[in-house]
Amino acid sequence: MTGRLIHSLATTESLAQLFSDESVLAAMLEFEVALARAEAGVGVIPQAAAAAIAKSAKTENFDTAALANATLRAGTPAIPLVRTLIENVRKNNSDAARFVHWGATSQDVADTAMSLLLKRAQPILLGDLQRVEQALAYLIEQHAGTVMLGRTLMQAAPPVTLGLKAAGWLGAIHRMHCAFTDAFSNAIILQFGGASGTLASLGSHGISVANELARELGLVNPEAPWHTHRDRWATLVCACGVLTGSLGKMARDISLLMQNEVAEAAEPGGAGRGGSSTMPHKRNPIACSLTLAAAHRVPGLVASYLSAMVQEHERGVGGWQAEWPTVAETIQATGLAIASMAEVAEGLSVDAERMRANIEKTNGVIFAERAMMFLGSRLGREVAHKVLEQATKRCVAENRHLRDVLADIPEVSANLDSDALQQLETPEQYLGSAEDFRKALLSASSKQVFKKEQ
Amino acid sequence: MTGRLIHSLATTESLAQLFSDESVLAAMLEFEVALARAEAGVGVIPQAAAAAIAKSAKTENFDTAALANATLRAGTPAIPLVRTLIENVRKNNSDAARFVHWGATSQDVADTAMSLLLKRAQPILLGDLQRVEQALAYLIEQHAGTVMLGRTLMQAAPPVTLGLKAAGWLGAIHRMHCAFTDAFSNAIILQFGGASGTLASLGSHGISVANELARELGLVNPEAPWHTHRDRWATLVCACGVLTGSLGKMARDISLLMQNEVAEAAEPGGAGRGGSSTMPHKRNPIACSLTLAAAHRVPGLVASYLSAMVQEHERGVGGWQAEWPTVAETIQATGLAIASMAEVAEGLSVDAERMRANIEKTNGVIFAERAMMFLGSRLGREVAHKVLEQATKRCVAENRHLRDVLADIPEVSANLDSDALQQLETPEQYLGSAEDFRKALLSASSKQVFKKEQ
Amino acid sequence: MTGRLIHSLATTESLAQLFSDESVLAAMLEFEVALARAEAGVGVIPQAAAAAIAKSAKTENFDTAALANATLRAGTPAIPLVRTLIENVRKNNSDAARFVHWGATSQDVADTAMSLLLKRAQPILLGDLQRVEQALAYLIEQHAGTVMLGRTLMQAAPPVTLGLKAAGWLGAIHRMHCAFTDAFSNAIILQFGGASGTLASLGSHGISVANELARELGLVNPEAPWHTHRDRWATLVCACGVLTGSLGKMARDISLLMQNEVAEAAEPGGAGRGGSSTMPHKRNPIACSLTLAAAHRVPGLVASYLSAMVQEHERGVGGWQAEWPTVAETIQATGLAIASMAEVAEGLSVDAERMRANIEKTNGVIFAERAMMFLGSRLGREVAHKVLEQATKRCVAENRHLRDVLADIPEVSANLDSDALQQLETPEQYLGSAEDFRKALLSASSKQVFKKEQ
Amino acid sequence: MTGRLIHSLATTESLAQLFSDESVLAAMLEFEVALARAEAGVGVIPQAAAAAIAKSAKTENFDTAALANATLRAGTPAIPLVRTLIENVRKNNSDAARFVHWGATSQDVADTAMSLLLKRAQPILLGDLQRVEQALAYLIEQHAGTVMLGRTLMQAAPPVTLGLKAAGWLGAIHRMHCAFTDAFSNAIILQFGGASGTLASLGSHGISVANELARELGLVNPEAPWHTHRDRWATLVCACGVLTGSLGKMARDISLLMQNEVAEAAEPGGAGRGGSSTMPHKRNPIACSLTLAAAHRVPGLVASYLSAMVQEHERGVGGWQAEWPTVAETIQATGLAIASMAEVAEGLSVDAERMRANIEKTNGVIFAERAMMFLGSRLGREVAHKVLEQATKRCVAENRHLRDVLADIPEVSANLDSDALQQLETPEQYLGSAEDFRKALLSASSKQVFKKEQ
Repeated sequence: MTGRLIHSLATTESLAQLFSDESVLAAMLEFEVALARAEAGVGVIPQAAAAAIAKSAKTENFDTAALANATLRAGTPAIPLVRTLIENVRKNNSDAARFVHWGATSQDVADTAMSLLLKRAQPILLGDLQRVEQALAYLIEQHAGTVMLGRTLMQAAPPVTLGLKAAGWLGAIHRMHCAFTDAFSNAIILQFGGASGTLASLGSHGISVANELARELGLVNPEAPWHTHRDRWATLVCACGVLTGSLGKMARDISLLMQNEVAEAAEPGGAGRGGSSTMPHKRNPIACSLTLAAAHRVPGLVASYLSAMVQEHERGVGGWQAEWPTVAETIQATGLAIASMAEVAEGLSVDAERMRANIEKTNGVIFAERAMMFLGSRLGREVAHKVLEQATKRCVAENRHLRDVLADIPEVSANLDSDALQQLETPEQYLGSAEDFRKALLSASSKQVFKKEQ
Repeated sequence: MTGRLIHSLATTESLAQLFSDESVLAAMLEFEVALARAEAGVGVIPQAAAAAIAKSAKTENFDTAALANATLRAGTPAIPLVRTLIENVRKNNSDAARFVHWGATSQDVADTAMSLLLKRAQPILLGDLQRVEQALAYLIEQHAGTVMLGRTLMQAAPPVTLGLKAAGWLGAIHRMHCAFTDAFSNAIILQFGGASGTLASLGSHGISVANELARELGLVNPEAPWHTHRDRWATLVCACGVLTGSLGKMARDISLLMQNEVAEAAEPGGAGRGGSSTMPHKRNPIACSLTLAAAHRVPGLVASYLSAMVQEHERGVGGWQAEWPTVAETIQATGLAIASMAEVAEGLSVDAERMRANIEKTNGVIFAERAMMFLGSRLGREVAHKVLEQATKRCVAENRHLRDVLADIPEVSANLDSDALQQLETPEQYLGSAEDFRKALLSASSKQVFKKEQ
Repeated sequence: MTGRLIHSLATTESLAQLFSDESVLAAMLEFEVALARAEAGVGVIPQAAAAAIAKSAKTENFDTAALANATLRAGTPAIPLVRTLIENVRKNNSDAARFVHWGATSQDVADTAMSLLLKRAQPILLGDLQRVEQALAYLIEQHAGTVMLGRTLMQAAPPVTLGLKAAGWLGAIHRMHCAFTDAFSNAIILQFGGASGTLASLGSHGISVANELARELGLVNPEAPWHTHRDRWATLVCACGVLTGSLGKMARDISLLMQNEVAEAAEPGGAGRGGSSTMPHKRNPIACSLTLAAAHRVPGLVASYLSAMVQEHERGVGGWQAEWPTVAETIQATGLAIASMAEVAEGLSVDAERMRANIEKTNGVIFAERAMMFLGSRLGREVAHKVLEQATKRCVAENRHLRDVLADIPEVSANLDSDALQQLETPEQYLGSAEDFRKALLSASSKQVFKKEQ
Repeated sequence: MTGRLIHSLATTESLAQLFSDESVLAAMLEFEVALARAEAGVGVIPQAAAAAIAKSAKTENFDTAALANATLRAGTPAIPLVRTLIENVRKNNSDAARFVHWGATSQDVADTAMSLLLKRAQPILLGDLQRVEQALAYLIEQHAGTVMLGRTLMQAAPPVTLGLKAAGWLGAIHRMHCAFTDAFSNAIILQFGGASGTLASLGSHGISVANELARELGLVNPEAPWHTHRDRWATLVCACGVLTGSLGKMARDISLLMQNEVAEAAEPGGAGRGGSSTMPHKRNPIACSLTLAAAHRVPGLVASYLSAMVQEHERGVGGWQAEWPTVAETIQATGLAIASMAEVAEGLSVDAERMRANIEKTNGVIFAERAMMFLGSRLGREVAHKVLEQATKRCVAENRHLRDVLADIPEVSANLDSDALQQLETPEQYLGSAEDFRKALLSASSKQVFKKEQ
């Protein structure tokens, strides 16, 4: 009995495994073992007890289905987990059993287990994000000069380059890359406070045990327990929201470019990427659709997390209990969006000829503003404006190019030589600062990455 | 590998099973078998093919983990499902294999499978909701005369009865019960449209096959396919949102009443409901916390579903792919909230003495408005107002009852006999229309239930 | 000082006026006047007091900016409103002043004022919704035979008709029309409970006053006060969410059809609808963008409302205070979406030739499934499948039509006469049950409207 | 006609003014004037034109209501703004009129105007946040030794100090203070790209004009236009979400402490803070309720913003149009939450005696774990456990203190001298690491502030 299939479009395989029953259980047991070791190290419990606990804390000794059901009754996974662990330890060493979970509270194990899972999620997500960025950087360089229609409100507009467009994607993704990395690092911390968050039952040993426990687990030990202060995880969840939004924007653009009528780019087919057997040419935007699905789901998950931050006193009634599924699904959805766009960025096929052809098909009306500037200085702006208003109407009505329609107008041909007119619709001549912007975005993206690596 | 544990505070056991891999797979296979039977019945495919498909469409012939992974690649569970089913059928009957999934599109099987799951969820949720209502109706009658503090902005206010308070809960829950039942019924429908939603590949047999298929599955056949028109499921998801909000309100109230300092009511302990071994008297609001967790999560899930309704043309890019986990989690969270509050309503322990004592502890200042009315007619409102302003200040400062403080004031004792003053703080005399409201709410709740049952 | 401009893309003019300071103030005063009249009618307060209150309760006697600021301090608009009203009444009739707001609580006036505003919003929204439906019904009939590409995942698919497509839009909108109408009706109710929701200070007159007050205001009087039971408004807010989602789907479709490369339809230009002076032919999807903006905003507003439903005891701390802006913006956004799509539906220009041309441009590969069925019965499915796989590849590679490529294949031409082959790509012959579905959707929409009107 | 009243619990006065029509209009005009100056500076337009534009661009020359209505038609405020500005300029200098808005696109002015508004919002919000932190730091020091109940799941738990509790609030708020400051700084940037984001119509002058324009406006000029890349504003909106969540947690805690039955703390009354005239002692949690209202609303606003990030190509259809109200309301709600909690933190009244009394009222059962440790080493854990299980039951049943019940048990009195037993329930002796945690949180908060200021 599992929930893998119903979430099959909502997670990658590796992240599904990360949040699997076995993995979650293992993380909780890791906490219990490390706690016992830390306490034995500090002298709070006997070394033998720690050893006995470590020996019994094996996932194979637990029935995860039973644990899940008992968790629902107890309102926390820790109570049935500890109960079963005590039973297991008692079989080997009845003395040791009473030192299980010593000084800790339920939320300590649950929160720390999630931190451990986040720690394992971090390299998966950041690794794929690196792939997105590298692939985009390559695209940006390769298509520095590939002209294509600008599209505003999904209507034809003056040209851009694919290099600039991809640089826009990279810029947004890279800016979040840094925040995302920070958010992950800040979220991966120990939770250890005991019942009221004072570690009272450890007397004067609280801080020492906490330090040792954090060391054992490879987690940062924050200034204090944070049972009802969820800002660090909230920040991570939000960073997932913003990043997924930026990836969704890229996915939307590409899925629009993949329309048959546009046909300027396509995500890679790849193994298992469906497609129809009778329409083998067909390339569906599968990876884009998965990314967009994440971009639909994550904002609501962020809202759920944020609204659950209002937690009462030293342990929340409802807010905390809402968190595990929300965090797990946010991480999985975000990870899927990143992995999907990595695949897309690495394998995007681009039809530069079609891009140019689609510019051509506008009959040059996207250059009307440019023509205005040519003519304005010669005819005066008022006259130029009227000329162009009529000319563009004729372009549409007669399906002719602006340069040709203008050539027929005496006022124009008298003032503009035919060479200039022939150049009017050359996209490369009407790119403004596109190349500067492309370079600046690319450079900003590489520079900060470099800084981070130091 | 599963996701049961991470969702252990987010679903009941029966709903976890309902959305388990085996159950989801079974629902999809049920569609394929029913489709083949319907088409054989109408004469579109051979009867032998339908029989062979039915024989091969057994969940044990499928590897759900592999299916989940292939689903991610294909962007839909239907493609790998059908591929494997064809392979299975081919082993038995190679002719029949080509009739698998005949005329259907991927979304037909995925959506209809969810409808079948919703059909099985409906009695679970409605059954528990019935339990909530019945238990509340009993509470309402039992505590018609149990007076307790009204609390506005969590401050003491004139008294109410527990019967009225519970009637408020029931009223809100019952009003959604009807809408919820309707929303479920409207959501449990066949999806069958083929590639573009026209059933084109079935020629003139489309409608006949659809009717027969709906009959086979026990589903309503709507006027037309609804691939990108998700209002019916959206309405169900929203109904879950409203209902969970009303249940959350009840859970919040009860968890507030359970505070040690208030101690007027407590949810039942029950098996496995945790509690501390060293503090065996302690009753934690576990069921309330699970309900409140649902009330934190569902609004975000509703937002996710609604924002994903904007689906393109005849098959959405991203919106549809976001739905399965969102619907499943909404149903599970709602089901858990209902089941939790059923348990609470059925086992709520009430401390009527403490309720009365908590009224007493306010020293009668909650009756200041009442005193004002007594005195206003005798002293004039202006004077009465000043008298009461001073009197209530003294109640607080000297920790004395309002009736006693007032008795010391000559203007008061001259105008109000001591009997009337002694009655001032009798809660039962200051309930206004509480009993009428209690009865009206109870009656509205029963009447509509009756209507529904006819 | 206003907030009209920052919300200028978020509301229609009439709905902005409806939620303007003057209008909100007037609604609150309407409550106070009606309350006084009801109480005078029942004999709770003097008739002269009611007259004096009615005389003073004029919007021009209030400074809305000061009222807004005092509202923030008091945490409710009612306290400063009543204070000022008392001052105003006192100027005319000092006796009457003490009967202002008699027996009511702050939330009574605030909630009832919103009910009065919703009552005025209802015909605006429903009227525009009627326009959408009527215009769509016309489109559906007019374009029953207008063939166009089906598009799944934004890729070319077998043909549909514009009539069917528009019938899908209408079906979804109409289904919500009914629920929306109900939700509005159920939401437009009196709130009247006094401090703790018992009307205690009115003694035995509570119900009579409430009935009379409801009658004065033209509102339904529910079974009981509902201060912390917000399901009825939540249901309305949710209905807005679902309806806006369905309108957003229609807007997305139309904005996609408006792309230059597709150019199959366009929303009407209309006065002030922008467009470029140098590109006068350009038609931007303005109304669609406003509808889609609403479809982005409303889901979050719904989540806000639902999460705020968890309100404490007899008066919430935070939940209630969150409601006014959330409800007002939801109604305004929804009203704007409806009005925008009414304009679009009434003025949609359709290019049926371009629709057919876009089908043609697919080179017939969208008919591959159809060809398969023709050939399957003659060549056997296996052979037919291979033939078509190669044929469609050649269509794409050589930019030739499927019918022509197939004609060159001896196995095909030997088995299929050239007439049949020439018919292969006729869209009208491959519409399956499109016409039946179109009619059924249209009929369902009209029937229910009829039922409602009875 | 305004929307101030309906938003009166949703914004402070200063933030209402910031997003008022006049203020929004002024910000847009500021852009147009600065653009003209920048272009004149670079030599793109005549200096006289810039002067004429500056002269005409006065708010008093515009009708904001008409502008709002025309904005709705145009789908952007820029088109009617520029049209009116051109008309105004033309009256003074017909030549200059043609240089209005030169080279800019609608979104350039709208986005930059919002940046200018955010720039003015920043010090308001950060100033109040500083007040919250300073007041909390004072509370933390003042109440380092004020013991109070810990409360987990709203049930009594071992003691904490108010100093630690407030340090928890400060820690969470301070951690977001830094992120919030950064998010603001990153969000306050120029938008300037022209039609397709290439500044094509400025030829080679694009970058120079952009730099000069940014300098004029006192805004950062980012690497490139970011018309459809909204991550920076999304990050600010999210930071508002997290901060509001942390403030909401503090408000929830305080409103719980304000309950009559708890009565350990109260937010300040202050001018206009309502309260009842007949119950003058009553202190309602008004500021807390406003903060909690914000904490209910902002998560949904965050979801709206994030879901709208998926914007098409070079100018979004719907996503962008959703932003203005969402950003403005998020900033206003957050600002109100900060200002409210500043007031609360600065004026919180604390009843330390009541805090201690509430500990006493638990009859010492919250020290059961402590007793266990005392007895465990002497009696063995098993025996000790049984002893305590019975003892705590008797505490509850007989309403006696744990120390007294234990003193009656021979096994206990034989092993524990009566002095030790009398100390058992001394809160100060069972605070574990509370003081260390308090200091660490306070220190972390001060240190980082210091770093920021350098």
